[in-house]
Amino acid sequence: MRRLSIIGIGTGNPEHMTVQGVGALNRADVVLIPRKGAAKEDLADLRRAICDRFLANPVTRIIEFDLPERDAGDPSYRKGVDDWHAAIADLYAALLAEHTGENGHAAFLVWGDPSLYDSTLRIVERLRADAGMELMLDVVPGITSIQALAASHGMPLNTIGGAVHITTGRKLRAEGFPQTADTALVMLDGGCAFRDLPGDAYDIFWGAYLGTPDEIAIAGRLDDVAQEIEEARASARAAKGWIMDTYLLRRRDTRER
Amino acid sequence: MRRLSIIGIGTGNPEHMTVQGVGALNRADVVLIPRKGAAKEDLADLRRAICDRFLANPVTRIIEFDLPERDAGDPSYRKGVDDWHAAIADLYAALLAEHTGENGHAAFLVWGDPSLYDSTLRIVERLRADAGMELMLDVVPGITSIQALAASHGMPLNTIGGAVHITTGRKLRAEGFPQTADTALVMLDGGCAFRDLPGDAYDIFWGAYLGTPDEIAIAGRLDDVAQEIEEARASARAAKGWIMDTYLLRRRDTRER
Repeated sequence: MRRLSIIGIGTGNPEHMTVQGVGALNRADVVLIPRKGAAKEDLADLRRAICDRFLANPVTRIIEFDLPERDAGDPSYRKGVDDWHAAIADLYAALLAEHTGENGHAAFLVWGDPSLYDSTLRIVERLRADAGMELMLDVVPGITSIQALAASHGMPLNTIGGAVHITTGRKLRAEGFPQTADTALVMLDGGCAFRDLPGDAYDIFWGAYLGTPDEIAIAGRLDDVAQEIEEARASARAAKGWIMDTYLLRRRDTRER
Repeated sequence: MRRLSIIGIGTGNPEHMTVQGVGALNRADVVLIPRKGAAKEDLADLRRAICDRFLANPVTRIIEFDLPERDAGDPSYRKGVDDWHAAIADLYAALLAEHTGENGHAAFLVWGDPSLYDSTLRIVERLRADAGMELMLDVVPGITSIQALAASHGMPLNTIGGAVHITTGRKLRAEGFPQTADTALVMLDGGCAFRDLPGDAYDIFWGAYLGTPDEIAIAGRLDDVAQEIEEARASARAAKGWIMDTYLLRRRDTRER
């Protein structure tokens, strides 16, 4: 049976690699690296840097491939994602058939952790269900941008005994700050959804390019720093061609000592 | 100035160590390892195993110490935690004064990630604020039990575009399943709080001793497997003297393909 290792590589610092991840990388026959677009190219560079530094097995081959793009214009978000996943599944099936034998072992290097806002596991599920491919799966956890954010600010994610709500910019904008938590972590926010919240009620801890040499971190009362964050975000994005950022919001009335 | 590295070591598999963590460990003059009680002794063993395997700097000393116990009988949970943190801060101040010079570098090895349901960062804040100790802090993220759980079940934590609510057994029991998420991750649950939920409305993905050779993982519709989990949990706890477990609950009406 084919084996697939889905390896979380952390968020831009090659030293986020775990010893488990380095081991899985070196047991693979082939490492599949996606590329395309400005952000994708920088992420491909990170994956190449990780292979340069940690891949010691001379037999392991590195195969680069172009990922299909998601149709962001699809009026249904779920439908757009679904079609995109189907196209990627077809591509993965073709790549595995071409580059691995029936008992071969391929590895994917996934930004962050494969379990959080990443589609690789869903796509592999399609390979099994739709393409009928038999696969042994092993998942290697990696450091997420949430953890890199907390480390950068030297802070806990939760208040004592408190809940932490992980959500997306889209949901924050649609639903507001979650009632049931004093801490919200916002990912995949392309447009500063925090601007819709009352700025005197929250502290924000924001970070971009976390873990990389380009890391930016800004924290403060939301109305004190929202403008600064928005400007830093826009100028970094313009300079680099892409941005990946995340932030923590905490109700100020639950602040601890 | 003294330097403190707070290193997340993951959840029981020494290979959860990141390359960044291994580096910080080897730059420390002293590694401080707590012990006491059955669980604490097993966790101390893990920390010793990590040092045996990854600590190559002959100058680094390993110092073991006994942690004070939290007064679980305190009627105020917050007050009990507060007093406990104060006692630990006093101990840390004494340990740092005894074992590191004014420009020394100490490392703590923290189970999971220092930012999630761990008190070390709060206690270090006390060292600075109450004991007036000047400290340079560096936080190294580590794999959490949540990530080890997802990896063990080979599943994503979030539904597509959905929110993930991280909470405690105590809060789940008091507040029920969060209205604003379809996925809840429950940590620090000493008593199977999932038993209070309608068993036909949720799937559960449960794991104990995640990442270790003793790992147990059970998944299914809550009313199909709740009893099995409760029994597995009780017998493992009886056999080992302690248990650390966590679980994911997902509303069945939001299940995806």
